[in-house]
Amino acid sequence: MHESPNSQPPTGPLAGIRVLDFTERMQGPYGTQILSDFGADVIKVERPQSLTSDGRPDERYGSRFLYGKDPEDSRFYTAGFLAANRNKRSIALNLKSEQGVAVARKLVEFCSVVYENFRPGVMKRLGLGYEDCKAINPSIIYASASGYGQSGPYVDLPGQDILVQAVGGFGAMNADDLGRPVPVGMSITDVLGGMNGAMGVLAALVHRAQTGEGQRVEVSLLESAIACQSEQAVHYLNTAVGEMRRRTPGHGLGYIPSPYGFYATRDGYIALSSGRQIQQYCRILGLADLTKDARFNEYWAREENREEFEGMLESALQAKTTKDWVELMRAEDLFCAPVNTFEQTFSDPQVHHTEMVVEVESPIGPLRLIGVPFKLSKTPATVRTAPPLHSQHSFEILEMAGYGEEEIADLIESGAVTPPILPPQEPPATNDGASLGP
Amino acid sequence: MHESPNSQPPTGPLAGIRVLDFTERMQGPYGTQILSDFGADVIKVERPQSLTSDGRPDERYGSRFLYGKDPEDSRFYTAGFLAANRNKRSIALNLKSEQGVAVARKLVEFCSVVYENFRPGVMKRLGLGYEDCKAINPSIIYASASGYGQSGPYVDLPGQDILVQAVGGFGAMNADDLGRPVPVGMSITDVLGGMNGAMGVLAALVHRAQTGEGQRVEVSLLESAIACQSEQAVHYLNTAVGEMRRRTPGHGLGYIPSPYGFYATRDGYIALSSGRQIQQYCRILGLADLTKDARFNEYWAREENREEFEGMLESALQAKTTKDWVELMRAEDLFCAPVNTFEQTFSDPQVHHTEMVVEVESPIGPLRLIGVPFKLSKTPATVRTAPPLHSQHSFEILEMAGYGEEEIADLIESGAVTPPILPPQEPPATNDGASLGP
Repeated sequence: MHESPNSQPPTGPLAGIRVLDFTERMQGPYGTQILSDFGADVIKVERPQSLTSDGRPDERYGSRFLYGKDPEDSRFYTAGFLAANRNKRSIALNLKSEQGVAVARKLVEFCSVVYENFRPGVMKRLGLGYEDCKAINPSIIYASASGYGQSGPYVDLPGQDILVQAVGGFGAMNADDLGRPVPVGMSITDVLGGMNGAMGVLAALVHRAQTGEGQRVEVSLLESAIACQSEQAVHYLNTAVGEMRRRTPGHGLGYIPSPYGFYATRDGYIALSSGRQIQQYCRILGLADLTKDARFNEYWAREENREEFEGMLESALQAKTTKDWVELMRAEDLFCAPVNTFEQTFSDPQVHHTEMVVEVESPIGPLRLIGVPFKLSKTPATVRTAPPLHSQHSFEILEMAGYGEEEIADLIESGAVTPPILPPQEPPATNDGASLGP
Repeated sequence: MHESPNSQPPTGPLAGIRVLDFTERMQGPYGTQILSDFGADVIKVERPQSLTSDGRPDERYGSRFLYGKDPEDSRFYTAGFLAANRNKRSIALNLKSEQGVAVARKLVEFCSVVYENFRPGVMKRLGLGYEDCKAINPSIIYASASGYGQSGPYVDLPGQDILVQAVGGFGAMNADDLGRPVPVGMSITDVLGGMNGAMGVLAALVHRAQTGEGQRVEVSLLESAIACQSEQAVHYLNTAVGEMRRRTPGHGLGYIPSPYGFYATRDGYIALSSGRQIQQYCRILGLADLTKDARFNEYWAREENREEFEGMLESALQAKTTKDWVELMRAEDLFCAPVNTFEQTFSDPQVHHTEMVVEVESPIGPLRLIGVPFKLSKTPATVRTAPPLHSQHSFEILEMAGYGEEEIADLIESGAVTPPILPPQEPPATNDGASLGP
């Protein structure tokens, strides 16, 4: 476990860059979290809503699983919120009030980047669109993340991960043995959209560093879903028949001959992935004779006789445990790996060596978060602080923007700014989670 | 279809940045392709091997599917190569020869970024490690992409997408109805690793623009696999019992009550995803009574009675086609989408509106590629040229680096540089693909 001390000053490549973050749910927050990992000061503008029936700010959404020492702590953090909001500061503004919008516009003056993922048109109606922000801050970089893009036939449709997986072909790409479409078991298009948004902003920052010019950056779940399937797509788009690469039944990609996939062993599963190593695999598995058989010894012949070959492979694999097979095969540098449970993944020595599990302090106790996947030697990205409590940094952010004590009191009095929601001195009412969710 | 004229000059945010690209397969090439889309001049250093038995340079790998007008064209492009190498120039160097390494070291002088994905240690042994390149070019940004990281217990293991999916928990995350681990049906960790590598380089370029300093950037398949599962991971890591979020049988995420997933209709599948809209879904489906039933009308109650609820939902959905349901539901702004085949995805009007299918010219005819997922208003990323033919740009690259005509002839004579492999005047021998593959 790599411990990141709370409030460690940012040292990343974006130290000194401030981001005004109007994002919710996953795609946008994941994108601005990457910028915050790189050292940007990300100010998350949350909705100032009164708490929902179970005492939870609405965006901290969707889960009745609880984090921290008390069940009541779910009003502060849920999995989705924890996953995409570390290193940020929070202010809760009522953007339905003139005063709330005025505060947001004031904050634009102090920021290099605005990042939003409302449905297209919403920010403009609020007076916070690209042209509005550019008028306030001419070199602003303005990123918009959406479901389907900022224009076009689907511009007004609600965009959400599993819907865009459906439209974007993920069901076909990830189909099961019987060809039934299956979504990928996580919000993968949100993560890809967040990464693409962060990349767009980084590229715009490179341009701005050279010219002083800002610009608009647009990303969407749909474009991200298509881009990541490049290999499947170019195959489909460039074959005369528009061929779809068939998924290997129960295993991996549809176009790589056996062995390629997850195979059952005596006690679990092992991943094998290299047809080039067929001689060694077969020898270790006690199937050396197969490599003299014309049906199996050649790469594409094996594809044509896949079912028969894999039957023998899986029978042979039943002789030992995953751990034993992996040891035997790794000793010969064969391509193999144990198929891990989450318990195995998060106790894996390499996962810990690469500091992909980090601990941060929070007002409700220590939290374990995921580390950063890009390691920079001079200006490392870091995990510095837990996701903020709701409106936790309102006062300091308003002071930074030049608001005086009386003005701040007025903003809170009028409801334009919601004061921080801090951990309770006594437990709030029981959280039954009813009516929450996406 | 968005047509990108060949040889359009780069206008992107990285115009003027040159990248020396020692990458192969998918993770590295996908990362440098992002940089090339942003306008960088990416020089791909290919192996100079003599052709494999079927006349195909080895990295242009793994597929017997053919692109272009003749079957023989597969010696120029395969799906994996097409997917991750556009906008690049190619030179083939023999890095096993002193002269070949000398050319590579000379090219480092002309580049801002070196990007490699050999196994850890290989570049250093070649005299092309970070310290070597920094000695040649002090502000160099040096990116290394690997399977498991540049150090640690797995540093010497072969890292490859499906193996890292296994180690990184993707099998568990993407498990099927019965809990059997299933890999995601594409090389998703390669794509994520490529994106993280490009992000690391972009962040390092921001730092370099401010300070002139270069640095080292490291990414890996494993770190990328963990990072993208942030939501699943924080849930697992912060629950007292280390709970794994169960996948909804046959559908989407494990922790969102029904409806959430892909559901069969009369003629296909529809994606539904919002428990908040249960009243409207049920009315449209003719199930209005259910919303008065205490077993189903509340979010978490519905989770406890999921099987029964989904049975009724799927029965009701059999009454109409996917298209009809989508029309009815979209009219009320409900969260829904058709689950598309690739044919449907790549004829979808929004996919085309967002220019996610582009056509480029190539020596073997027009090719269709995937567009860029980040749209920048002032310095757009672009698809300018088809992936290069093998060593296609050797002469112009050597000239750029100051080599004279005689020196170039010597380099080719000695085998340090392989001359371009251009389309044949007459068809080469038949390509049977035997013995190729990963």
